[in-house]
Amino acid sequence: MSTIKDVARLAKVSVATVSRVMNDSPKASAASRKVVLQAMAELGYTPNANARALVNRTCDTMGVVVNDVADPFFGALVKGVCTVAVEQGLHLLVGNGFHNAEQERGAIELLIGKRCEALVVHSKALSDEELIDYALRVPGMVLINRDIPALKGRCISLDNRLGAATATRHLLGLGHRHIAFIGSDHAIEDASSRLQGYRDALAEAGAAADAERVECGTPNEEGGEHAMLNLLAKGLPITAVVAYNDAMAAGAISVLADNGLKVPEEVSVVGFDDIIYARYLRPKLSTIRYPIELMASQAAKLALQLAAGETQTLQSRIYAPTLINRHSAAPARD
Amino acid sequence: MSTIKDVARLAKVSVATVSRVMNDSPKASAASRKVVLQAMAELGYTPNANARALVNRTCDTMGVVVNDVADPFFGALVKGVCTVAVEQGLHLLVGNGFHNAEQERGAIELLIGKRCEALVVHSKALSDEELIDYALRVPGMVLINRDIPALKGRCISLDNRLGAATATRHLLGLGHRHIAFIGSDHAIEDASSRLQGYRDALAEAGAAADAERVECGTPNEEGGEHAMLNLLAKGLPITAVVAYNDAMAAGAISVLADNGLKVPEEVSVVGFDDIIYARYLRPKLSTIRYPIELMASQAAKLALQLAAGETQTLQSRIYAPTLINRHSAAPARD
Repeated sequence: MSTIKDVARLAKVSVATVSRVMNDSPKASAASRKVVLQAMAELGYTPNANARALVNRTCDTMGVVVNDVADPFFGALVKGVCTVAVEQGLHLLVGNGFHNAEQERGAIELLIGKRCEALVVHSKALSDEELIDYALRVPGMVLINRDIPALKGRCISLDNRLGAATATRHLLGLGHRHIAFIGSDHAIEDASSRLQGYRDALAEAGAAADAERVECGTPNEEGGEHAMLNLLAKGLPITAVVAYNDAMAAGAISVLADNGLKVPEEVSVVGFDDIIYARYLRPKLSTIRYPIELMASQAAKLALQLAAGETQTLQSRIYAPTLINRHSAAPARD
Repeated sequence: MSTIKDVARLAKVSVATVSRVMNDSPKASAASRKVVLQAMAELGYTPNANARALVNRTCDTMGVVVNDVADPFFGALVKGVCTVAVEQGLHLLVGNGFHNAEQERGAIELLIGKRCEALVVHSKALSDEELIDYALRVPGMVLINRDIPALKGRCISLDNRLGAATATRHLLGLGHRHIAFIGSDHAIEDASSRLQGYRDALAEAGAAADAERVECGTPNEEGGEHAMLNLLAKGLPITAVVAYNDAMAAGAISVLADNGLKVPEEVSVVGFDDIIYARYLRPKLSTIRYPIELMASQAAKLALQLAAGETQTLQSRIYAPTLINRHSAAPARD
């Protein structure tokens, strides 16, 4: 188990300096701040190793910050955290961040203010630096769907890029060559990672991604409808679609069906996330599984261990996306 | 605007007695408690009419208690409350009650403890008496999907019985005579009200409800699958199904399709709630609209007005369910 002395030794500074950095003192220089944070991350040291007693006394509440609880994906995230909270006899408070820096900050501050010592945070709009600051203030804070190297051991994420590449490779393997991508217009990492994964797979197959075959929209059912309508309006040959998420895939399938295009006979569609209703769509949606409930439970357990000052914690990790091969993707015709 | 004196006069007790009841003093007798609560309800009097200044100073957070935030219906409820909170620059905390008395109580107590002066509560497991007690403690508490006569002005609900009757009448009007009902096995009022509405409509049409044609399950997609499988297993003639909610309808449609029964040509299905994905199912789901987002926004505004001590508040009310006629219900054959 690491101590403050180990941190000081590794960072080549005094214990007093480590303490100043930990207490956010104005006397700590930017340079010492950087080396101390680095050393803390390397050692997996949490500022309050004696927090267990304190936590056992005061921590009756876990907190979780999501984008929007009304979105089924985030509903599943909350459910994963909630399962752990209920098992442990803890209450759960939920805040919405709406992929907006001010609201994400507000939600985190609120939960800290409401004394949630264990926090699972889905933040997309705040910078790495700001999240590192929060992580230092709150030993029991874990990030989900985010990978910050300086917070090794406190992040649980999914390889979004690989997921979209897997979806695209599946369609390429079925013989499709005219594959469109329906993307999210949210300015978050997931949106660019998934688009990049689609491009990776096309490049591997020797096909350049055609910007005309990429349409973005709000990452929900209606956004998927609009994007699919735009793709159809262009009149390009399209035999398959990779969607940013299942909700957009549902919207796309609805528009295809309304326009007399059979899925999967004429157009194949692959989604992403495997939200609850993916297998109740017709055809049942082929998609990329994002094991968000499992990951959220893991994050919640990790947050509780960290809040209790345990240093032998669960490993944080990058989860692998997997293909769920249902009925919405079929071999290309001709 | 009513005063404590008006309450005392109407209840035929002293002002001191009203005060004792309001402060939950052990000196207040059960009898005086009853008449005072009655008088307060009749006058629409809220205990802390001077709360406005206090609230403006301390109320930065609204609270909402739902059954399970991972359920799309409750996601929409939270969204309705959240919209109002964001408009007013307030934070929102969410608690899960899981239709369980202990957890509902825990969630309400937690949010009160976290100083949410405005509270929207979806409670199904707590008694009227217990909720009346909470409503007295928390002037800014509003109940949603519940109608307690003594809390006139603090409840916003839907006529569930009428909704299920409307769904069943629609199918009767299409010539169906063998109509099954897929119900919820949660021991809550909604489950019995909707079943009763189905029976009402059958009785009007001179058809007795056949208990064999009623199957209950968990009110989600899987519960709908199991219930539909049980109905099919019985081998009874069934040409139409009224489902407790859209999730169960989705499960039922999936089972019907897997068993080669065309919806709506061979079996019509009507859902309840109009959750977000109802119109992305194939066929697009005919359902009963539960305007939960609108109702939740109304409840949130009412809670804020009550927390601020306003007595000229929005009206609470019982909303009317309406039929959304999409493509999953068609005329009966022959």
